[in-house]
Amino acid sequence: IKRKHSGSDLTIFSEMSALALKHSAVNLSQGFPDYEIDERLKKLLAEATMKNFNQYAPMPGNQLLIENLITFNSHRKIPIEVAKENVTISPGASYGIYTALAAILNVGDEVIVLEPNYDSYVPSIEINGGIPVFVSLTDDFRVNFAALGKAINHKTKAIIINSPHNPSGKVWRKEDFDQLAELVEDSQIIIISDEVYDLLTYDETEFYSAFQHPKLRERCFSIFSFGKMFHITGWKVGYVLASEELTSAYRRIHQYLAFSVNAPAQYALAKYLEIFKVEENRKSMQLKRDFFLDAFKDLPFNIKLKAESGYFQIMGYEKISQLSDKDFAVWLTETAKVASIPVSAFYHENRDTFSVRFCFAKKEETVLEAVRNLEKYL
Amino acid sequence: IKRKHSGSDLTIFSEMSALALKHSAVNLSQGFPDYEIDERLKKLLAEATMKNFNQYAPMPGNQLLIENLITFNSHRKIPIEVAKENVTISPGASYGIYTALAAILNVGDEVIVLEPNYDSYVPSIEINGGIPVFVSLTDDFRVNFAALGKAINHKTKAIIINSPHNPSGKVWRKEDFDQLAELVEDSQIIIISDEVYDLLTYDETEFYSAFQHPKLRERCFSIFSFGKMFHITGWKVGYVLASEELTSAYRRIHQYLAFSVNAPAQYALAKYLEIFKVEENRKSMQLKRDFFLDAFKDLPFNIKLKAESGYFQIMGYEKISQLSDKDFAVWLTETAKVASIPVSAFYHENRDTFSVRFCFAKKEETVLEAVRNLEKYL
Ligand SMILES: CSCCC(=O)C(=O)O
Ligand SMILES: CSCCC(=O)C(=O)O
Repeated sequence: IKRKHSGSDLTIFSEMSALALKHSAVNLSQGFPDYEIDERLKKLLAEATMKNFNQYAPMPGNQLLIENLITFNSHRKIPIEVAKENVTISPGASYGIYTALAAILNVGDEVIVLEPNYDSYVPSIEINGGIPVFVSLTDDFRVNFAALGKAINHKTKAIIINSPHNPSGKVWRKEDFDQLAELVEDSQIIIISDEVYDLLTYDETEFYSAFQHPKLRERCFSIFSFGKMFHITGWKVGYVLASEELTSAYRRIHQYLAFSVNAPAQYALAKYLEIFKVEENRKSMQLKRDFFLDAFKDLPFNIKLKAESGYFQIMGYEKISQLSDKDFAVWLTETAKVASIPVSAFYHENRDTFSVRFCFAKKEETVLEAVRNLEKYL
Repeated sequence: IKRKHSGSDLTIFSEMSALALKHSAVNLSQGFPDYEIDERLKKLLAEATMKNFNQYAPMPGNQLLIENLITFNSHRKIPIEVAKENVTISPGASYGIYTALAAILNVGDEVIVLEPNYDSYVPSIEINGGIPVFVSLTDDFRVNFAALGKAINHKTKAIIINSPHNPSGKVWRKEDFDQLAELVEDSQIIIISDEVYDLLTYDETEFYSAFQHPKLRERCFSIFSFGKMFHITGWKVGYVLASEELTSAYRRIHQYLAFSVNAPAQYALAKYLEIFKVEENRKSMQLKRDFFLDAFKDLPFNIKLKAESGYFQIMGYEKISQLSDKDFAVWLTETAKVASIPVSAFYHENRDTFSVRFCFAKKEETVLEAVRNLEKYL
């Protein structure tokens, strides 16, 4: 009965969150905030339903939301030029990635994935008839463009990239996009770019979008998440930027799949974009990363790359244990009462890297509780 | 670039709604209410976000919503026995149908569709590698079980059925399900049953679910819509009932596609199920159907089947015009200023039946305005 794909019956995120619950462990596994969201978002959602945004939104999205996204993107430090023919609102970013793949793949097409990678990519490729081809990032999570070049052949239909990167927090520089553009220049290869942590880059790191690159713009889908931008992962709204042609291919699937997205949430997000402060949001998350790093500094983990972005910090545990990533993460949850995600889960062959990923999008007291728990065992 | 399927660039619903807007026509085309929704639903949505239901709901759905659905289904006139392993919350019913197909189809599998049929079925089959096979309903929208039997062969993977039926409002009786069960008894055929108008049956007509039938239960997906149940089409939440095995196949796709559904809406729906009155809701829609039929009775349309259910009434226009269904619906919108859906749009070859579908899920003043407009031209 089942369509074959190499995903599991339960994602690693659901599995580790359930294990955390079972063992009353502090949950630093699945990426969701445990702090209060902006009260104004709550008020706007209430306002939306009171104002009768309760019937179908247009298929591409609420009109005001699309207009405000165009303005929002034109006001970035490095502006992204967007017209309404380039935007489609989606019920979350995973859906955006899946639907982009559904729009372009034919059976047997190859899609290159840079691992470690988010767990939905490979099943989404396979369910849609594609064949994943794996290229490893370097040990410090840079792209090996020589290896990427070698993986490309006439069957390559797309490359999935992800910057800011989950799980590592690595951010691609403009030069990386230049190199990618050069590699695909003479082909029809499409870039699917997962950019859900766009607004959360730290220190001097600047976000750059595939859709900003003059040579990639016409061949890419850039996928964003209001859940991650505004810390409301449960609202399940994202957006997809793509060329007019790719947008039309995307909507030809979308209109028969979800058709449209939760209307009250779309109105609330449209209004919130008008008052949202990017820099304040960025800085408050940077403080959370710094708080986390400071709190963990005397524990015997080692850090290869300090997160440049996002919700997560990878920590090596070579000095603590010889267990596999998964066994270590399970032990940490069951015994030390702190849940994380084994980094091996981001590799198609569960490659062990002796590291786990912690989510620092948490209240200070949550991080401190995790540290107290860990101190007893490490 | 585009994945091939026989859907259009714009669904007939988006097309006719846009045309209505352009010509300031009364919009009786796309199925959505224009009356006020229950104030309590608005308050519950506000309450949900205030109470911090803003992060990821569990992948199968909010726990309280699933529990309350189990109770709700056990209290139907003809109870449906449901366990939590049978329920998955979905971002709308179209998504439920698409994902069920994605979960079971392999390239080349045949899926039987009874036409006239809702417009998402065929593209959803094709995008997922399946081949649609068409069997016509009788002129009065009954199933021709002999023809259905002939269409079944060893390649048949599934049959999509739809009761209460869109566009006709026809409701399957228990005997219809008995006949279907007999036809598929010796096969592995899966039934995908679109039941989004379950709560809206009129007069003495009783709803019966495929998931209630002892011989179909283990081989079916029954798909429901809170949008249609509670007149909030824009919330985009539905649910899928299926056997444990089919539910697990469904979730193996769902967890990589949308992963989960808008959390505030799920909490609000869970609480609303505790106070919602099925019979009151049913009766108020029956009054709308009756009001519509009465208002239209002196216009020169003819009615083959008085809607037994749902939001829609099909009206024949043989006495008015020789135009094709589509041309007539366009003329009606542009000239008489009333938008409808041409019934030909529900047939894969746009078969003309000299009828259009009107939505009666509207305020009385909307219906009266439509009648005034029509009276000038008919
Ligand atoms: C959809 S659950 C996973 C959430 C997430 O983005 C992560 O933890 O990486
Ligand atoms: C998703 S738009 C179509 C709404 C509907 O169910 C109909 O009009 O039949």
